[in-house]
Amino acid sequence: MPATEQSARYAEVRAATGRLIRGLSAEDCAIQSMPDASPVKWHLAHTTWFFETFVLQPNLAAYRGFDPTYGYLFNSYYNAVGDRHPRPERGMLSRPRLGEVLAYRRHVDEAMQRLFLSGPLAQGIAELIDLGMHHEQQHQELVLTDLKHLLSRNPLRPAYQGPWPLTPIRPRLRGWIDFEGGACEIGHEGAGFCFDNETPRHRVWLSPFRIATHPVTHGDFIQFVEDGGYRRPELWLSAGWDAVQARGWQAPAYWERRDERWRTFTLHGMAPVDENAPACHLSFYEAEAFARWAGERLPTEAEWEIAARHAPVEGNFVESGALHPLALRETPAGGTPAQIFGDVWEWTRSDYGPYPGYRPAPGAVGEYNGKFMSGQYVLRGGSCATPADHVRASYRNFFPPDARWQFSGLRLARDAN
Amino acid sequence: MPATEQSARYAEVRAATGRLIRGLSAEDCAIQSMPDASPVKWHLAHTTWFFETFVLQPNLAAYRGFDPTYGYLFNSYYNAVGDRHPRPERGMLSRPRLGEVLAYRRHVDEAMQRLFLSGPLAQGIAELIDLGMHHEQQHQELVLTDLKHLLSRNPLRPAYQGPWPLTPIRPRLRGWIDFEGGACEIGHEGAGFCFDNETPRHRVWLSPFRIATHPVTHGDFIQFVEDGGYRRPELWLSAGWDAVQARGWQAPAYWERRDERWRTFTLHGMAPVDENAPACHLSFYEAEAFARWAGERLPTEAEWEIAARHAPVEGNFVESGALHPLALRETPAGGTPAQIFGDVWEWTRSDYGPYPGYRPAPGAVGEYNGKFMSGQYVLRGGSCATPADHVRASYRNFFPPDARWQFSGLRLARDAN
Amino acid sequence: MPATEQSARYAEVRAATGRLIRGLSAEDCAIQSMPDASPVKWHLAHTTWFFETFVLQPNLAAYRGFDPTYGYLFNSYYNAVGDRHPRPERGMLSRPRLGEVLAYRRHVDEAMQRLFLSGPLAQGIAELIDLGMHHEQQHQELVLTDLKHLLSRNPLRPAYQGPWPLTPIRPRLRGWIDFEGGACEIGHEGAGFCFDNETPRHRVWLSPFRIATHPVTHGDFIQFVEDGGYRRPELWLSAGWDAVQARGWQAPAYWERRDERWRTFTLHGMAPVDENAPACHLSFYEAEAFARWAGERLPTEAEWEIAARHAPVEGNFVESGALHPLALRETPAGGTPAQIFGDVWEWTRSDYGPYPGYRPAPGAVGEYNGKFMSGQYVLRGGSCATPADHVRASYRNFFPPDARWQFSGLRLARDAN
Amino acid sequence: MPATEQSARYAEVRAATGRLIRGLSAEDCAIQSMPDASPVKWHLAHTTWFFETFVLQPNLAAYRGFDPTYGYLFNSYYNAVGDRHPRPERGMLSRPRLGEVLAYRRHVDEAMQRLFLSGPLAQGIAELIDLGMHHEQQHQELVLTDLKHLLSRNPLRPAYQGPWPLTPIRPRLRGWIDFEGGACEIGHEGAGFCFDNETPRHRVWLSPFRIATHPVTHGDFIQFVEDGGYRRPELWLSAGWDAVQARGWQAPAYWERRDERWRTFTLHGMAPVDENAPACHLSFYEAEAFARWAGERLPTEAEWEIAARHAPVEGNFVESGALHPLALRETPAGGTPAQIFGDVWEWTRSDYGPYPGYRPAPGAVGEYNGKFMSGQYVLRGGSCATPADHVRASYRNFFPPDARWQFSGLRLARDAN
Repeated sequence: MPATEQSARYAEVRAATGRLIRGLSAEDCAIQSMPDASPVKWHLAHTTWFFETFVLQPNLAAYRGFDPTYGYLFNSYYNAVGDRHPRPERGMLSRPRLGEVLAYRRHVDEAMQRLFLSGPLAQGIAELIDLGMHHEQQHQELVLTDLKHLLSRNPLRPAYQGPWPLTPIRPRLRGWIDFEGGACEIGHEGAGFCFDNETPRHRVWLSPFRIATHPVTHGDFIQFVEDGGYRRPELWLSAGWDAVQARGWQAPAYWERRDERWRTFTLHGMAPVDENAPACHLSFYEAEAFARWAGERLPTEAEWEIAARHAPVEGNFVESGALHPLALRETPAGGTPAQIFGDVWEWTRSDYGPYPGYRPAPGAVGEYNGKFMSGQYVLRGGSCATPADHVRASYRNFFPPDARWQFSGLRLARDAN
Repeated sequence: MPATEQSARYAEVRAATGRLIRGLSAEDCAIQSMPDASPVKWHLAHTTWFFETFVLQPNLAAYRGFDPTYGYLFNSYYNAVGDRHPRPERGMLSRPRLGEVLAYRRHVDEAMQRLFLSGPLAQGIAELIDLGMHHEQQHQELVLTDLKHLLSRNPLRPAYQGPWPLTPIRPRLRGWIDFEGGACEIGHEGAGFCFDNETPRHRVWLSPFRIATHPVTHGDFIQFVEDGGYRRPELWLSAGWDAVQARGWQAPAYWERRDERWRTFTLHGMAPVDENAPACHLSFYEAEAFARWAGERLPTEAEWEIAARHAPVEGNFVESGALHPLALRETPAGGTPAQIFGDVWEWTRSDYGPYPGYRPAPGAVGEYNGKFMSGQYVLRGGSCATPADHVRASYRNFFPPDARWQFSGLRLARDAN
Repeated sequence: MPATEQSARYAEVRAATGRLIRGLSAEDCAIQSMPDASPVKWHLAHTTWFFETFVLQPNLAAYRGFDPTYGYLFNSYYNAVGDRHPRPERGMLSRPRLGEVLAYRRHVDEAMQRLFLSGPLAQGIAELIDLGMHHEQQHQELVLTDLKHLLSRNPLRPAYQGPWPLTPIRPRLRGWIDFEGGACEIGHEGAGFCFDNETPRHRVWLSPFRIATHPVTHGDFIQFVEDGGYRRPELWLSAGWDAVQARGWQAPAYWERRDERWRTFTLHGMAPVDENAPACHLSFYEAEAFARWAGERLPTEAEWEIAARHAPVEGNFVESGALHPLALRETPAGGTPAQIFGDVWEWTRSDYGPYPGYRPAPGAVGEYNGKFMSGQYVLRGGSCATPADHVRASYRNFFPPDARWQFSGLRLARDAN
Repeated sequence: MPATEQSARYAEVRAATGRLIRGLSAEDCAIQSMPDASPVKWHLAHTTWFFETFVLQPNLAAYRGFDPTYGYLFNSYYNAVGDRHPRPERGMLSRPRLGEVLAYRRHVDEAMQRLFLSGPLAQGIAELIDLGMHHEQQHQELVLTDLKHLLSRNPLRPAYQGPWPLTPIRPRLRGWIDFEGGACEIGHEGAGFCFDNETPRHRVWLSPFRIATHPVTHGDFIQFVEDGGYRRPELWLSAGWDAVQARGWQAPAYWERRDERWRTFTLHGMAPVDENAPACHLSFYEAEAFARWAGERLPTEAEWEIAARHAPVEGNFVESGALHPLALRETPAGGTPAQIFGDVWEWTRSDYGPYPGYRPAPGAVGEYNGKFMSGQYVLRGGSCATPADHVRASYRNFFPPDARWQFSGLRLARDAN
């Protein structure tokens, strides 16, 4: 990507972050609602720290750091660049204030523009900037999911933005799409950006399989709930059943039962559960139990990628402004799975591990992905909180099997015969 | 107290709260740093809720509540007036914003002035307003101690206000003051305000005792530390030793060791420990262990009260602006214990229980004190964060034996003979 | 006490311990059912270790220790005599086996008899032996209460011994006995044995009070339960209400509701709750809440002692074999409280602290009592698991306010107008 | 297998269990040392319960159950056959006594012999008996590892059996064996017994790889320790580093440092660490970190199985009596990996999931494996505590990544070029 193009894209990515926090107060941005989530202010500073630490300090001659303490406060997990403030303590930082963090963003953005103007960038630098932008897009999604969690803990159930028409649509029949399997290739291909965990492209052997035309909907999931799904241990993985009992799960995250109807907390406040929209805020355990209840299974990540590789990367992404999964409006042409991008991240049956031949990038950014490769499961496809140009068929998202605060759902699969 | 006098005092107490938060950001006021502490914003709202709920709603005819949800959000522990938001969740409330809470304060203050102007108040109402003002003063102290705890958890150790000269003073020799004991009366006496836990005045029998002329100083406490005080189980109550080990205590709260010297976090930022100032941020366990190490003991609350009853209520209170215990400047006349009011709350050996014949006030305000009468120890005398007109010789403060975030220290006692 | 008399009493105390474990298996004696309880085998060894460590090793010239590792394994909390095995780990000791521990007991008993035969003992030694015997009696009670807890965690609810007729008796009306108060003396008096925490005898001032003729019965307590006692926060101390909610208390420990009736686990297996027997297995919090519900209060320990000082030390002790509180068969003469000794330990409103002028014994046995003087409440009078000659009016038992596995109940008190 | 042959094998498997507990006391068999481990008595009863519940009750006409309560007490996790006693409570069962459990075993064994004598068994029954015998063999290994853990928590470090000569042997050079990869088949093949998790046999695609000729030895691992392996976060998976810090790991489980030398707890008591024996009692995290430190990686389970499929199932199994990994005595012929069976289970990089096309067995025994397929990693090859005829190349053992109490080690792998 030429420097001017990259400069424009940088400005756009950074501005998109700014748009997300319009209307938020300093308090909304400061509080940490659980150890897994971070304050919005921290996301704003950490994404900026990434550019300052990995791009500006080594490469912009006259760069003057904004504040020497920020390196400690806003490092997330890069052990190689020094000590860091513990994650569960991020919510203790009333200082620096939001205004100071926003000044930090401007300071770094101005320096980045100086860097872009300084002439063509070496390939390694340009790649780091690319990585930083995708990093920022990941945190854009977390800004929304973490903020949603915070607001949900307020008994007033306040909205992030005004109500959005969540119009119910007629349900579609679920069908199946067949794939032949055999020796297939997965992993990133081509010249565009990818994270190191999508590489190397490699061969896998797949038996013939089928994958559902649509994600599981809230209406489908209500049937599971009403059939006693949360009370039947035989439907669950053992660790999943333990989680159900220890946490008292009786429905997806954010659901509340009032007057015989299910309602859910959204970024627009409380709203009725839309039965035709993709099911959401499910843990891996719930997705897996649902599939067993339905007599089907989750796809592996290789199956999912084969099914998605020819589909256009279109759908309900963050740019739509819905910030919630939506019912399908039109069914795609035969052979293309519907809603495979956007709406909800889809849990796969694959644990998040290294591809054969995987090598982390050298240096500190090598800590980006590889060290998280245990105890998590892969999700694919992006969600209603993902930037549209951030995701692709080979993209591997990952969360622990009990995580429910992301926009996470599922699509069923089965063996072909 | 005539209504105009009470009205003026009301205005002054409320304004004093406002002065405490000058210079604080919305974030400083929103975060909860531990379950024992509350956000400043919560203190601002809760003290206001007290007047709205117990004074205005029952007694001001045309009173219109500010927001119907606040009754739930800002009730502390009065079960009799309905459900309440759980204490450890107070830090989850990014909404209402600080600005809204300040508007709530103004709304209630205006209504209170209308009430004062409405004519002479019935005695019961005037008494409730008095209680509300003392309640607010208690929370003024907590605003400072809770905020101090929050700022201490920020690795930048930010200051609440600019540095204050903590001038070292020459040490004074500690002496003893003798008391005869026998049948003595303790508890509140006279017409002024008191909390119900100071009543009824009643007789106790005391053996002859002596009480120290000065509180234990930081210099004294450093000797304890350097003599291995935190490593010698024989000096500690069993529960205290458990706390030392479980929490890794090696010095009073907020102390840090750097370059062979002790420094401590104050509301003015990090500062050297002043050896001549009263020792501070000690738990009951540490106070009790220090006394054993010194070959002395803590006074009972009855002994303390007998020793203090003729002393003037003067000293280093919040109005001095020091916000930290100070070294003694001049020794009082013979027979009067120095620094018995202000600087630090002094732990006694008495558990916080009901006086013989104690009756809680009827109605919801009866939950003010009585229900906390287990598992806590009595402290006396007020601190550098206490309003000067809030404390008296019969005043009983109380905290669990492991609490260290208050300005808490000790004064030694011994049996006579 | 002359040496032959002490020798005989030693033999009897030790034999009484042996009788308690008749019929128990090695497994019954090895398991620790919660951190507060100890395995029976540990009690057997620890009481023996006391004699070996404090009596034999310093005083019997040719004494050869049974096993050098036992000093570490069976020290309870005497820091002064070296390291000790952590309390919650006592249940990890499958070795030494029960048989070895019984051999240890015989080894020490034989050495003790040699010591008794060696001539008149110095007073200090005789006093230590006395202390050791009372120490063993305390552990006899704990053998029963700890074993009861273990058996209660077995879903088969096995019995310790065969059923015992728990005959219901007609209820007695509760009355009151008046006491004048004034300057009274409490604490141990006379030449008999006492623990150091009963000293020094000292004066207290009491207002006139009344104390109930009988302990609160199970029938009384069922009324509290049925009146919603466990669901009404206004009846509870704040810490007590926290315990009710955190632990889901709905009735006294060991109670189970079946077929609309209350049953309870006893050392004879499951049995119906006897409405006329003293209420049992109550925490301090439950006792205090019951008293508030009844419109009365708990006595202080001084009141209790004044009320009990002239009563004969008679009642349902361990020797009766009932091992459960029993309904009263005959009412004592006027002015004497019924069942004030035996049946159930009675919670008082007094926290367990040092008497004025209290001095722990010098040396390691000084750790016996003093270091536990925080966070616990005093119980008086002994129970159905206490040896008859172990208790007296000045005896101070103590447990944390949430402990329920002892035979603990209450007697009401009130102010005499 | 003909019935007489199966009958003989049944008798032998059951007798092997009996031999394991020779010399253990009732206490050794009763105590549960952590929630992950079970008391030996529970293993003895649970394996018997399996035969009673799944074989005798449905198939032996006149079978009379031994005790109706055992179905509840000794069910492990089969939800389909009713409620069960919670796993962490297994150590609370002092009753039934060991003697009763042994009588239960005899009762079931006699009934089983009647069943064998009743004529040829239907294939389904014979298969269930086969499953029960392999189930019992799994528990034989757990008897040893759980007992080892219990004994290790006794400060006396008692031995399970007398010392065994752990003779140091000269070290061997580690080499590599090459495999071509491509489309390979893994999973169980042929007519012998296997668990359902080894099926179906299926194709995978492997890139060319190399696998080490020997397992990593204790000597290798000491180098890792001495190179600061436990203090360098860059060597660890993020979850592994969390475990290192939270648990204070500084060496493999059971290691103790004394006099500058490493010693380890074995079933023969404390012994020096044998540098030439395979490294043992490692978690997955430690195995994975070691591999990274060494510049290599763990094999996948498919790679391991391809490497092992032609090796004879020979090695240091439980029958050798060593009960500890041993140094290699003779190197196998070229191309065959040494010690690939026995000594230590070898961690693979594969999470434990379902094979493509996996179907759990119908009915309650379908809960045997499938429900544990999350959050665990696969180990291969058997250990010094595994019965020799219990393991095979396709056998999949699995444990959570932080488990260290099994005899678990590793073998390195790398990509070919």
